[in-house]
Amino acid sequence: MDQDVGPSRRTTGARTGGRSERVVASVLQAALTELAVVGYAALRLDDVATRAGVAKTTIYRRWSTKAELVRAAIYGAVHKDEALPDTGSLRGDMLEVLEAAMAMIATPEGRAIANMITSERADPEVEQLCRELRDEGRKHRMRVVVRAQERGEIPKEADAILIMESAFGLVMSRLVRFGEKTDRATCERLIDLVVTGAEHGGGQRRSAGRRGR
Amino acid sequence: MDQDVGPSRRTTGARTGGRSERVVASVLQAALTELAVVGYAALRLDDVATRAGVAKTTIYRRWSTKAELVRAAIYGAVHKDEALPDTGSLRGDMLEVLEAAMAMIATPEGRAIANMITSERADPEVEQLCRELRDEGRKHRMRVVVRAQERGEIPKEADAILIMESAFGLVMSRLVRFGEKTDRATCERLIDLVVTGAEHGGGQRRSAGRRGR
Repeated sequence: MDQDVGPSRRTTGARTGGRSERVVASVLQAALTELAVVGYAALRLDDVATRAGVAKTTIYRRWSTKAELVRAAIYGAVHKDEALPDTGSLRGDMLEVLEAAMAMIATPEGRAIANMITSERADPEVEQLCRELRDEGRKHRMRVVVRAQERGEIPKEADAILIMESAFGLVMSRLVRFGEKTDRATCERLIDLVVTGAEHGGGQRRSAGRRGR
Repeated sequence: MDQDVGPSRRTTGARTGGRSERVVASVLQAALTELAVVGYAALRLDDVATRAGVAKTTIYRRWSTKAELVRAAIYGAVHKDEALPDTGSLRGDMLEVLEAAMAMIATPEGRAIANMITSERADPEVEQLCRELRDEGRKHRMRVVVRAQERGEIPKEADAILIMESAFGLVMSRLVRFGEKTDRATCERLIDLVVTGAEHGGGQRRSAGRRGR
């Protein structure tokens, strides 16, 4: 870390945004690296501090538990690489969401997260973290479906979560659980299957005007 | 075990079908129970023999490794509870496949299998077993989609694996990974989404020569 950023060297009280952000980024990156190297169970905040070159108190002041720190590190990594696309079409947006998520898992950080998810789920803290990541990610992703509904591309009655998760879940489960990347043509076919279904009134919440089954 | 079944008491050579089947069933059930109690890593063939009340050699003669025995036990349990439905419609068949799979996971045997999948994937033998189970199950399930194609219910060009797995994968991932059972209405909506898509030409393979995954 550059120690000569900003006018203030105080370690408490008001800090400059730039310095503070760099410290945070450095700690979160160090946490991901530790996660990749030793896994969640063996990760220690002290080792993260050493790797980031900051005082332990700097970490404990912001993140009081390992779970909080790892959660922040993962959220940072996921948000960086999974920005919401806006291609103008639901098929295009969903394809970008799938490809960005697969690309993210291919990075060292993504690999560390995937390993934690597949190998350390027995730990209740990891389990809770996985659940939060799933819920956050789902909320984030389904916005591309809601936008398509607002544009009138698919009916408002279609279940936005099912549209995104049926495709996303299959692609990510193949990659994270079996190490199998889904090729672009298959992603397009999968997206086409569910979006075509939504376009033709499939998967709607129970209400008037549903097609028979 | 009843020791007085059939005319032969020989332990090698030809055995009566009934006796042999009962021994197999008893060993496989004992293997599942051991799996539920101690997990895959700690499971020992000797303990399975003791629990089944058979000689160790009876087990080793049929299944030379732990992986083979556990695979046979899981296949037996899965096949028992996941017989292929034939309701006459793809939506009906898929709903039964999903509900049978969820019911199977709710049994002690199913819980043992799910625990192994979520908690012991770091073991390469478990990993290999999970992959085989996935491939076998997928081949089994997709037959209901192929039958629907043969009936003309959906186009032959539709990707049968994607139709089944997009729905099955989401429901099973929620249950196995997060302990969340998907209710019947949501299953129906999910199935309706992908089947409607297939009915309207969604998710088709692009060209005649390509094999879809």
